[in-house]
Amino acid sequence: MTVKADTRLRRLPERGSKDIRLAHKIIDESRICHVGFTLDEQPYVVPMALGRNGDRILLHGSVVSRLMTNLAEGLPCCVTITHLDGLVLARSSFNSSMNYRSLMVFGAATLVTDPEEKKRGLDILVEHLAPGRLAELRPSTRKELSATTLLALPLETFSIKNRSGPPGDAKRDLDTPIWAGVIPLSLEPGQPQPAPDMPDDIALPAYLHSSR
Amino acid sequence: MTVKADTRLRRLPERGSKDIRLAHKIIDESRICHVGFTLDEQPYVVPMALGRNGDRILLHGSVVSRLMTNLAEGLPCCVTITHLDGLVLARSSFNSSMNYRSLMVFGAATLVTDPEEKKRGLDILVEHLAPGRLAELRPSTRKELSATTLLALPLETFSIKNRSGPPGDAKRDLDTPIWAGVIPLSLEPGQPQPAPDMPDDIALPAYLHSSR
Repeated sequence: MTVKADTRLRRLPERGSKDIRLAHKIIDESRICHVGFTLDEQPYVVPMALGRNGDRILLHGSVVSRLMTNLAEGLPCCVTITHLDGLVLARSSFNSSMNYRSLMVFGAATLVTDPEEKKRGLDILVEHLAPGRLAELRPSTRKELSATTLLALPLETFSIKNRSGPPGDAKRDLDTPIWAGVIPLSLEPGQPQPAPDMPDDIALPAYLHSSR
Repeated sequence: MTVKADTRLRRLPERGSKDIRLAHKIIDESRICHVGFTLDEQPYVVPMALGRNGDRILLHGSVVSRLMTNLAEGLPCCVTITHLDGLVLARSSFNSSMNYRSLMVFGAATLVTDPEEKKRGLDILVEHLAPGRLAELRPSTRKELSATTLLALPLETFSIKNRSGPPGDAKRDLDTPIWAGVIPLSLEPGQPQPAPDMPDDIALPAYLHSSR
């Protein structure tokens, strides 16, 4: 498929990158992505879980989902992952900004049909969100597997934008007597909430301690 | 404009809502949104800052940005805001899930041209991210204002999807002897990083203490 996405950064080209290792890192640190596509001339942007198998982004959903069916049929899409890393508070509104890392992947997904590849792909999705979890879970049943659609989007045509570092104030604003700098932001885990229907004697496993 | 977005939730309708107060809350707690649109049949999804003025979402960008120009000309778009609230760890891969609140707004943006309304809108964007900050900043210059495009997207056609609460395991999985529950997630501020070019005697203002 020819992807026609215009990935040039006309403005602020210093914020752009084509580094595939950085793309991997942005995906691997993410919990969700936003999938964009157009149906009947109406754009949609839908949040989804994701995983990565080499140079492919994996997405999954119900076999009865219209979205999954449309994507599986090759509907052009854009998958965007954004890490908001901080608020950049400059001495003016104009120079205030955000620190972020954002990856846009353009293309069309393909259905993963091979049973072993599909099983492995769904395992990757579980491990992506909770590394260590998979070993504790029973294998998925054939019924569960057949109720799930797995899609792969190649990491071929992509664009990275990012900003980091302190505010870039205009020289004439530098002696303004107000605080300037960055308030870092990150998605942090809180206190785990045990399911109400779980026996009290089951302890939080070690692999979830790190996410406390 | 007639918005043709299909906002019906065919699957899991219990996760849907049309509550405008909930829509406001999702916007007001957000720091970024993802803006989806299609150019030359290629979908794009771009992260942007946002604000809210009543029932309108405000977006801003450079006057020389192609995206802002296209949106200002009425390009159909979808603005999606997602709060990832937690990982839902069930006793099976299949029933594992995420807790989230997601708002999709469909329509076309309009350019805010009235100078006072534009100034007020840009102020709202500053206050949205750092409440209290605006009072400390010098007013924007005429040059800065004219270098910035402000867009408003009406909160008319929208769709909310959310999930909260513990895992919904299958009955037969309930006595699996593994931990199950929710790992809450939230975007948290870290230690403020003062700009290197700031005098040492400027203290962190009170309105930023709360974001520590």
